[in-house]
Amino acid sequence: MTVITGVEVFDVRFPTSLTADGSDAMNKDGDYSAAYVVLHTDDPDLSGYGFTFTIGRGNDLCAAAAEQRAQPLIGREVEELTTDLGAIYRELQSDSQLRWLGPEKGVIHLALAAVMNAVWDMAARRAGKPLWKLLAEMTPEKLVDAADMRYLSDALTREEAVSILRNLEGTRSERIARLEETGYPSYTTSAGWLGYSDDKLRTLCQEAVDAGYQHIKLKVGANLQDDIRRCSIAREVIGDEAHLMIDANQVWDVPEAITWVNALADFKPLWIEEPTSPDDVLGHAAVRKAVAPIGVASGEHGMNRVLFKQMFQAGALDYCQLDSCRLGSVNEILAVLLLAAKFDVPVCPHAGGVGLCELVQHLSIFDYVAVSGSLEGRVTEFVDHLHEHFVDPCLVRDGAYVLPAQPGYSAQMYSQTLVEFAYPTGSYWARSHDAVGS
Amino acid sequence: MTVITGVEVFDVRFPTSLTADGSDAMNKDGDYSAAYVVLHTDDPDLSGYGFTFTIGRGNDLCAAAAEQRAQPLIGREVEELTTDLGAIYRELQSDSQLRWLGPEKGVIHLALAAVMNAVWDMAARRAGKPLWKLLAEMTPEKLVDAADMRYLSDALTREEAVSILRNLEGTRSERIARLEETGYPSYTTSAGWLGYSDDKLRTLCQEAVDAGYQHIKLKVGANLQDDIRRCSIAREVIGDEAHLMIDANQVWDVPEAITWVNALADFKPLWIEEPTSPDDVLGHAAVRKAVAPIGVASGEHGMNRVLFKQMFQAGALDYCQLDSCRLGSVNEILAVLLLAAKFDVPVCPHAGGVGLCELVQHLSIFDYVAVSGSLEGRVTEFVDHLHEHFVDPCLVRDGAYVLPAQPGYSAQMYSQTLVEFAYPTGSYWARSHDAVGS
Repeated sequence: MTVITGVEVFDVRFPTSLTADGSDAMNKDGDYSAAYVVLHTDDPDLSGYGFTFTIGRGNDLCAAAAEQRAQPLIGREVEELTTDLGAIYRELQSDSQLRWLGPEKGVIHLALAAVMNAVWDMAARRAGKPLWKLLAEMTPEKLVDAADMRYLSDALTREEAVSILRNLEGTRSERIARLEETGYPSYTTSAGWLGYSDDKLRTLCQEAVDAGYQHIKLKVGANLQDDIRRCSIAREVIGDEAHLMIDANQVWDVPEAITWVNALADFKPLWIEEPTSPDDVLGHAAVRKAVAPIGVASGEHGMNRVLFKQMFQAGALDYCQLDSCRLGSVNEILAVLLLAAKFDVPVCPHAGGVGLCELVQHLSIFDYVAVSGSLEGRVTEFVDHLHEHFVDPCLVRDGAYVLPAQPGYSAQMYSQTLVEFAYPTGSYWARSHDAVGS
Repeated sequence: MTVITGVEVFDVRFPTSLTADGSDAMNKDGDYSAAYVVLHTDDPDLSGYGFTFTIGRGNDLCAAAAEQRAQPLIGREVEELTTDLGAIYRELQSDSQLRWLGPEKGVIHLALAAVMNAVWDMAARRAGKPLWKLLAEMTPEKLVDAADMRYLSDALTREEAVSILRNLEGTRSERIARLEETGYPSYTTSAGWLGYSDDKLRTLCQEAVDAGYQHIKLKVGANLQDDIRRCSIAREVIGDEAHLMIDANQVWDVPEAITWVNALADFKPLWIEEPTSPDDVLGHAAVRKAVAPIGVASGEHGMNRVLFKQMFQAGALDYCQLDSCRLGSVNEILAVLLLAAKFDVPVCPHAGGVGLCELVQHLSIFDYVAVSGSLEGRVTEFVDHLHEHFVDPCLVRDGAYVLPAQPGYSAQMYSQTLVEFAYPTGSYWARSHDAVGS
């Protein structure tokens, strides 16, 4: 019998604002950060690692919230928790005093994600499997039991969810075999941050093409003339066949989004990402209608499954970019994957930041293997930053994620990273006089 | 020249869970709490007081976030801040690192509300006027400058907003005179908490009728047979003429909401409040269609103006119950009042908790005087709890809020309250062995 004996939470921040990595029209100076959770057990060989992602200030709030969220886990048997991962999710989620602070959104939900990511990591480690495989070996009923289906029954009943999974159950192994050969398709955002010069943009686009990417994403929305020039450079480098995506990071009102995106239509973007407030379901639907055939993508700030349900019901999205650390871990993500399958919207998860690529590879692989059964229109974000801090970093080859093989959710950071980048006491921050994140 | 010299933030909690005050189908054991902000200046006679409301655990997160939110105020001139209250709101709101944690929702938004409530309180104190009067004496242009109009232009342009206010500008004083005679109509929730016995329910309904209330609200949603019995008791006591409202506090999925509410139709509820997830715009619209003529009310968990915009666009609400501490203070509330006026939806603010009644009286009065110009279908919540902690408590007479006369936003608590109920070091909590909120 193994018992959870304690939780440690670290506020980890990386000084990415110094190099304008990650800069866009809304977020000019992010310090990529993680509220990082370690669940300890009385078995020295079993721990659980999870985190949520933020961009600097306020990461301490998520860490403090994760500490509170995790308290009910202490003293609990690992076997009990990991055999019914829906039950423990619902127990943590239903703390009514913490619920008031959302509900199911913002800091307390990011913290729930961090804690439940660690629980899922522990479950996969205990089973000796990478997370995608743990999920791919669960029955349809077990998966739907784990999924957070509350508030969804007007769009997706339990029976429909089970039936979506059952239809693909017999052929899961074929799709695993295919991915073992090809990997899961990815695209890169590393080229297009707004703070980069034209020359750097040109060079990075060329490097991306050379590395095998068929999709390139640019940040837009600060200045239309700049956007026209940057899109033109990108098209010139990547040619007519590759896909160009543009990302406005929520800077526009709905009417402005429509005008601006249509002014970039000549560059044939595959999608416009986050054209307006991420909460604006009806706004996204209006933009989608007005900019077609350019697609509309959103979801990295999609706060919970109820938001996604409505996005699908309203026909607001061509691409669902759910976030592995903003939704309430695998439990809520399962529900969104099932909804997306029912409404036939491809899921192209948000990644980048720190550690998001490590997590989303598991989700995309599982989605293809067991939920969507399709790679059409699917491409998962990849940004080549900060992977060196992870014990089991993701691996992208010829523009595709290689299937993770180690047990767990690939969420564990090196101890040395914590020593160096824990905020504000880690060695980097302690010695830094230019602590931009302070 | 007066300068802001510092900010103090207090985590204040009241042990309301001990008496089941505030109990409903979702929130069984709330400890009414406030993250309470005091802005100090170098003028000993000028401070600003504000807070956000929570129900216990996690109030510390809001307090910590408010501390961070308030930092840019320190060292600033009060005159500069209070002559352009839109500018300082936008400055605080646009911290991109904190924004990531929402955006504009959850803990960081509750904290923004606490801080900006203190700024508005300070502005009103400096002007020597109650907040409602400060607002009622601002020009349409100044009010719209202060309002957070971002992401709203597809539903409400600046010009429309100014014109709504200008139409009523000439007759503001008539409406002030009327309210000085009658007060602003209120209703009571004190009777109907779910944890109360049938006898207590009967007695409290009778007391409410005797006190002049024409509206009584009951909590429902835990057990249908109980709800039928409790509604029947309430109707029996209050008669056919008075209004009965029911409140489910988000416990249902959409289909269940429709069935349950229709099963209570015989008791002719005026509205069903929070039938499902507060994020579910399309769900509320579906419920509204299916339970008419019973109205749909929601908003106490309405996270921001973008949610309300969509609620109005989708025809999802008969009553808008915005919350004074969940929306980003007066700046965002102004925008929602203007949207509600444009879409002709009556605003009946959420109150109760601790201090919410003190705040919302100002908002409702201003709404009538300058924005809606109507009392039809309007009634503002009142719960008779915890007013003794406020220096300028609200006063309800014959079921109506009496116009506040003291300068400010009525948000100041007594120092003795902080000494006693600051958590966990205040004298009450330090001596309590039954610290339910711990």
